[in-house]
Amino acid sequence: MRAEILTIGDELCRGEIVDTNSSYLAARLWDLDITTRWMTSCTDDAADIASAMAQAVTRADLVVCSGGLGPTEDDLTVDVLARLVGAEVVIDEPAKVRMMERFGRLLSSQAPMPGMERASEGSRAGSAIEELTRIQLRQVRVPAGSRVHGNPVGLSPCFEVALSGVPVVCLPGIPRELHGIFDAALVGRFTELREARGQVERIARRIYRAFGRGESQVSQACRGLVDGVPGASIHYQVKFPETLVKLVVRDRDQGAADARLDALDAGVRERLAGVVYGTGEHETLVERVTRRLIESSANVATAESCTGGMLGELLTRMPGSSKAYPGGAIVYSNDEKVRQLGVSQATLDAYGAVSEPTVQEMARGARERFGVDYAIAISGIAGPDGGTPDKPVGTVWIALDSADDQRTKKLSWPGARDQVRLLSAWWALKLLHDALDRKEAR
Amino acid sequence: MRAEILTIGDELCRGEIVDTNSSYLAARLWDLDITTRWMTSCTDDAADIASAMAQAVTRADLVVCSGGLGPTEDDLTVDVLARLVGAEVVIDEPAKVRMMERFGRLLSSQAPMPGMERASEGSRAGSAIEELTRIQLRQVRVPAGSRVHGNPVGLSPCFEVALSGVPVVCLPGIPRELHGIFDAALVGRFTELREARGQVERIARRIYRAFGRGESQVSQACRGLVDGVPGASIHYQVKFPETLVKLVVRDRDQGAADARLDALDAGVRERLAGVVYGTGEHETLVERVTRRLIESSANVATAESCTGGMLGELLTRMPGSSKAYPGGAIVYSNDEKVRQLGVSQATLDAYGAVSEPTVQEMARGARERFGVDYAIAISGIAGPDGGTPDKPVGTVWIALDSADDQRTKKLSWPGARDQVRLLSAWWALKLLHDALDRKEAR
Repeated sequence: MRAEILTIGDELCRGEIVDTNSSYLAARLWDLDITTRWMTSCTDDAADIASAMAQAVTRADLVVCSGGLGPTEDDLTVDVLARLVGAEVVIDEPAKVRMMERFGRLLSSQAPMPGMERASEGSRAGSAIEELTRIQLRQVRVPAGSRVHGNPVGLSPCFEVALSGVPVVCLPGIPRELHGIFDAALVGRFTELREARGQVERIARRIYRAFGRGESQVSQACRGLVDGVPGASIHYQVKFPETLVKLVVRDRDQGAADARLDALDAGVRERLAGVVYGTGEHETLVERVTRRLIESSANVATAESCTGGMLGELLTRMPGSSKAYPGGAIVYSNDEKVRQLGVSQATLDAYGAVSEPTVQEMARGARERFGVDYAIAISGIAGPDGGTPDKPVGTVWIALDSADDQRTKKLSWPGARDQVRLLSAWWALKLLHDALDRKEAR
Repeated sequence: MRAEILTIGDELCRGEIVDTNSSYLAARLWDLDITTRWMTSCTDDAADIASAMAQAVTRADLVVCSGGLGPTEDDLTVDVLARLVGAEVVIDEPAKVRMMERFGRLLSSQAPMPGMERASEGSRAGSAIEELTRIQLRQVRVPAGSRVHGNPVGLSPCFEVALSGVPVVCLPGIPRELHGIFDAALVGRFTELREARGQVERIARRIYRAFGRGESQVSQACRGLVDGVPGASIHYQVKFPETLVKLVVRDRDQGAADARLDALDAGVRERLAGVVYGTGEHETLVERVTRRLIESSANVATAESCTGGMLGELLTRMPGSSKAYPGGAIVYSNDEKVRQLGVSQATLDAYGAVSEPTVQEMARGARERFGVDYAIAISGIAGPDGGTPDKPVGTVWIALDSADDQRTKKLSWPGARDQVRLLSAWWALKLLHDALDRKEAR
């Protein structure tokens, strides 16, 4: 089954926004065993939209569109598609009801602009709802006879029509809404469409998240793993600084696919021992470490030099992270390493700020001062300047300290400044992750 | 003049990477007064590439391709295009010479993988160069008779052929290389192509960077500004949390366009006083503040609660930032606000952690302890939990402290957690930026 993705909008063609919807849709379709052959973007021009739609149905078995469903006069997707299929444009009543409710709520707690105080006017809600509704009715229209898939997140309903016998599914361009609709309605619908075409293989798949080795080393480690296993394949995706390993098994029987996937699981984990830190789409190393800290009632403090606060920022991304993270010290200068963490001037003089003894003293000092279970320290040369023959750009020392476990790690990765910093912060998380593993194993 | 952008690669159509090249190219073309009507992505399949190229030249005056120029057997752009124009494939000699030089350098300082120690083997460079060169020669090929635009950053040369009389320009898919080639060769070439079509208007343009008001308020403030000014237009682009205001004037005479742009400049600055913090494509608020601190030999320390280190991370993004930033305190818990910064328990008890008195004490405490010219403190409720009727999610207090200048700012912006945090860090930078302005004005 071959798909074409069509994204619509002047702002795309002026380069004002990056089209993340196409890649999102392509990845989700691929996971459903539907191959995207073409991705097209066009302006809000009605003739161009019509021409793109007409072409797409000649070369694809499924067309997925995003954009052009909003309330403005520029939003023409519904009108164009209705004309192409020879249907009228009608209001989708359930979507209209949702819209009225939502505007009522919005007007009673009016959202201000970035950084602005909350507007204090409040009583003209009634007439405002009417006015809003009149203008905004455009976004709850669909071609008559559409299969309406709704929208659990926003206003414009997702709908589907058949053009020359090919299903054309239209989604709003707002990524949050597009994602919500895909999860709620389209996974099931696209599976149904695929199976209706006789492509009835079921898919078992698992994503392994790997950190600490480059993609070529990860793929080298897994070489031959799926050889001879019917319907099995393995794929790699780099999301710097980690690599996703996607294991897929296809079979007409879901149970058989699942069983062969499970049988391969041990092999992946053995070949990537110490590298795979988790599975699944959503939980990155940051989220996993934060969750595990909270679950085990442990806490951590940070002592950062070259990362300048990045590790603290990562450890506070998740709601609820205050349970696991009281704070940290950003010690960009040597004086601050001494003042805030008690690193000895003698150590700095003898070994330099980027050295194993210095990060060890930073971590120990942080653990004592913050009164925490774990402390992590990072000190390195992020570049592009500051390197020496002994300590070239990309040299970073990391230390983990706890009452009964001390570790250090040296990185030597001559990348760009932002990459060296990100890699350092992730290695710090990895040290913490491994320490939590050791604790659990005891 | 109408352009089509074509990006090529299986990884695009599997959704493994987001296509940032299309938006980059569209924005750069728009700045050159060339309108992108279509953006197409296809797989590495030769028939699909050929079909996309053949279609593009029927509906565009210029085709810009990226991808498919690498060394592997999947990289087919050169082969397909050569066949379409009926030319042979030849080696571009200057690109080959550059490649040989580069491989020589690379092998003598072999780059290791992320986090791996530098490999210590070193003497088999000679035969390795030969082997590499044989495999990699694919990427320095071009169709015979091409206009070669080179590649100042990487290996695969950019080249141009005419297909059915329409210029088709092919670039490598690596963004850094694509950007370098565009700057070095294509701005001039595309201007030449546009003018050859009789579209000889010159463009004067300026980008104003605005922070502190939403896009609708910014555009409202500029309403009517360019009315009656020949060839003038104004455009807005949101790059959360800032808005770019693009002022453009077209005229057949560059001097006349420049003069009208200059005449409009004062109007923009007056209407967006206190909101526009700089001009130009590249220098964001972070970079501008860091540069100004270094230039004025001033330094700053940070005291962060809800941003968890994000402000410190921003202030250390630029190389050389150690001159302006000795460090900061991440004080996520109340105990740490007391311990690290000397905030009084009485203040916390009376007003809470998210309050004007608390951030003032945080900033004062940080300035004294770090011994710096400026200190900035942030404390807020980033959400999604932790809000109260008095202090809903999105309530953030920020304080700036210096020997002769104290300011505070309250935000009330009920957005998502990551947006609240980013907006808070930017407002902290803005307070510092405004303080530097006041100092300069004295």
